[in-house]
Amino acid sequence: MSKEKRQMALGAMMYFPAGEHISSWRHPKADAEGLLDFNYYKQIVQTAERGKFDMFFYADELYVWDRFESGVSHSNSIRPEPFSLLSALAVVTEHIGLAATISTTYNEPYHIARKLATLDYLSNGRAAWNIVTSQTDEEARNFGKDKHLDHALRYERAGEFVDVTQGLWDSWEDDALLFDKASGYFADINKLHNLDHQGKDFKVRGPLNISRPPQGHPVLIQAGASEAGKELAAAKAEIVFAPGSTFAPGGMLEDGQRLYEDLKGRMAKYGRERDELKILPGVMPIIGRTEAEAKEQLALIDELTPQQLGLDLLSHYLGQDVSSYPLDEPLPYLPEIAEFNQSKSGLQRIREILQQETLTLRQLYQRITNKRGIAGTPEQIADHLEEWFIHGAADGFNIAFPHLPGSLTDFVDLVIPELQRRGLFRTEYTGKTLRDHLSLQRPANRFTKVRA
Amino acid sequence: MSKEKRQMALGAMMYFPAGEHISSWRHPKADAEGLLDFNYYKQIVQTAERGKFDMFFYADELYVWDRFESGVSHSNSIRPEPFSLLSALAVVTEHIGLAATISTTYNEPYHIARKLATLDYLSNGRAAWNIVTSQTDEEARNFGKDKHLDHALRYERAGEFVDVTQGLWDSWEDDALLFDKASGYFADINKLHNLDHQGKDFKVRGPLNISRPPQGHPVLIQAGASEAGKELAAAKAEIVFAPGSTFAPGGMLEDGQRLYEDLKGRMAKYGRERDELKILPGVMPIIGRTEAEAKEQLALIDELTPQQLGLDLLSHYLGQDVSSYPLDEPLPYLPEIAEFNQSKSGLQRIREILQQETLTLRQLYQRITNKRGIAGTPEQIADHLEEWFIHGAADGFNIAFPHLPGSLTDFVDLVIPELQRRGLFRTEYTGKTLRDHLSLQRPANRFTKVRA
Repeated sequence: MSKEKRQMALGAMMYFPAGEHISSWRHPKADAEGLLDFNYYKQIVQTAERGKFDMFFYADELYVWDRFESGVSHSNSIRPEPFSLLSALAVVTEHIGLAATISTTYNEPYHIARKLATLDYLSNGRAAWNIVTSQTDEEARNFGKDKHLDHALRYERAGEFVDVTQGLWDSWEDDALLFDKASGYFADINKLHNLDHQGKDFKVRGPLNISRPPQGHPVLIQAGASEAGKELAAAKAEIVFAPGSTFAPGGMLEDGQRLYEDLKGRMAKYGRERDELKILPGVMPIIGRTEAEAKEQLALIDELTPQQLGLDLLSHYLGQDVSSYPLDEPLPYLPEIAEFNQSKSGLQRIREILQQETLTLRQLYQRITNKRGIAGTPEQIADHLEEWFIHGAADGFNIAFPHLPGSLTDFVDLVIPELQRRGLFRTEYTGKTLRDHLSLQRPANRFTKVRA
Repeated sequence: MSKEKRQMALGAMMYFPAGEHISSWRHPKADAEGLLDFNYYKQIVQTAERGKFDMFFYADELYVWDRFESGVSHSNSIRPEPFSLLSALAVVTEHIGLAATISTTYNEPYHIARKLATLDYLSNGRAAWNIVTSQTDEEARNFGKDKHLDHALRYERAGEFVDVTQGLWDSWEDDALLFDKASGYFADINKLHNLDHQGKDFKVRGPLNISRPPQGHPVLIQAGASEAGKELAAAKAEIVFAPGSTFAPGGMLEDGQRLYEDLKGRMAKYGRERDELKILPGVMPIIGRTEAEAKEQLALIDELTPQQLGLDLLSHYLGQDVSSYPLDEPLPYLPEIAEFNQSKSGLQRIREILQQETLTLRQLYQRITNKRGIAGTPEQIADHLEEWFIHGAADGFNIAFPHLPGSLTDFVDLVIPELQRRGLFRTEYTGKTLRDHLSLQRPANRFTKVRA
């Protein structure tokens, strides 16, 4: 068999249930009420599977964004719980990976190891875990705390949390279960291992009360783009969702290449090969049959967010209320990162925008609201993806959608075929598990000895 | 319409994945390997739905029972995680309730409120929560502790946990979501409520980031039979699964009546009506087409448990290793309950057996292993159920199965039709939600004011 051309990995992302955008639910074509109906999610994930996406990527937070009234009044801040939703979706799909966003700050590794293992069984090897550390004090207050855990501490906890989870997945060796009715031996006790973990944040004895997942370990995804986030990614992640890469038409490929090299370059010190990590920048295509139609679509999206909501969102990202400043003048200061305890990389992105361009407050909130958007024809969008893919800035993309399910359907019907024509994306699934789709090895069990 | 005859409520219980019995997986007809295959559970829950069961009741624990080697070698101590499994099962069923066993000792109310609400949406109003407090030190050691929380403290925590969860379910009033694309109003902020709970064990601000479940609150089930457990049941539960009732052929109806009256009698002080709580004793029918066949089935089951496993199980329930005592002599002491921190009601049951009968150690472990079993023809089993049902000892039953899926199929094909002939059980589902099946009211939202 001839060696195949390198293939893109593609994730289909659901940030808000109605789309990527805080106001996606208002889009004329969005099915806002679908949020509470399983058939809505079923239709979306089946469409993504029809498009041969590697995975459905489901975002999550652990609070209602009620810091500002507009968050409740205008934003869609409720969503189904990831494990429940993805387990149900496993039943109505056959090939597509299912990625759950789960916080290491407000969970216990034993529960998470078990739920991910169960999802991996229910889906026959299609589970993935988007490891996040949560961002806000609001989340802390739903879990007995006043303040969100400090940035450095929460990444330290995240690293230990992942270690413990991986250790629990190895509790049972792959061939530990015997099911031998005649002898009465259900399992081989020599192939069961206690973790006996005792660390700074966790003390967990084990073993896990479910056997080793079909994939050995479900696929690990990481999106933190701070220094601590990048180190966690280099050490542990198999996919990086890179929302911080300033992906936009006409440029900044160099930024993508720099981040790509930065992440891959950190892997060697953890004893890892570059191929063991796939880097997927986030991108939101706004597709038009013509350039004019794409621009119309973009203009429509810009109008969806009420001014107050846009300003409040900016205030949130900055950690400071900016709503009293004049709308058509620049922000009178450059925000500082050091003491900031939400998303440091998000704030860094805003700083970079302000350092490169002079934007009024209005322009700034519009830019922030429409993060990651590129408008164009299917060919133009494919050009951009191809450029990043072949020039060392991406191993694939996590695709976001201005509204759901329509924008996903457009992407599947218009952009995917273009990528396939170019030989950049699969026309059929060839493997069974998410690891197969991504050409990732099944990890060995840490406890299994090579036996004579 | 004429008033219908009072109807039994029936739960189909899965204690171990292969059946009720610690050695169910060894039964010649058990599908032991099904444990890891979704289709196994799908077949079982669809069979229960064919039988018009009110609910599928899924037990859980948070550890591998490895206190004794036999627990790993001979027992089936792994199982899928409840929320993941039941969410998947929601997709392949239409009517049957789905009850998840969830511990209040090793969880956070925000997570559990959200997962149960999601399951209620995924199933269109069929979620239930079997509230347990966990039992063993082994579970504690998987969650950062050395010892299991003291019995009194864990029931105190359970009560507060349920309060918080119910409060979170009321975060959004039933008509809080507007989805008004034209005005940009997603929700009516006046219909969103923070819980701001601050109690002994929990501090939870809320609101919950999913809207009010279809049932208002998923159905609450409680099984603890200690004093603390009974009080929690009388205050909060809508179903009591009464595993402690010594249900056996030929007698002890009086014990069932006493427990029934005891529980119902405690409700008034919590301002509740007797009908708001359904009492379902646990029972494991061993069905034969003839009495002789039933006895053969019973004998077969008795042989499945290896002697060491039976003894170790008894040692576990007693909290003391009895394996060194002579097998064919009585236990030389009566165990004390006061200091016991596992299941107090389980130990009480053993004490009652020993006070009523003189059993050798061998006979005692066999009795314990085959808990709740009654062997008979379908008519005899229906007679027993009817007797308890019409004589004030039960509102229905939680049916356990010697092996799965076969014993469930037999019950559906042989006993259910007999109950239906007697007018004691539905022939079709008439409602949509689990509350409908059980004739339980949908609870009002605590925050909703009657508006002019």
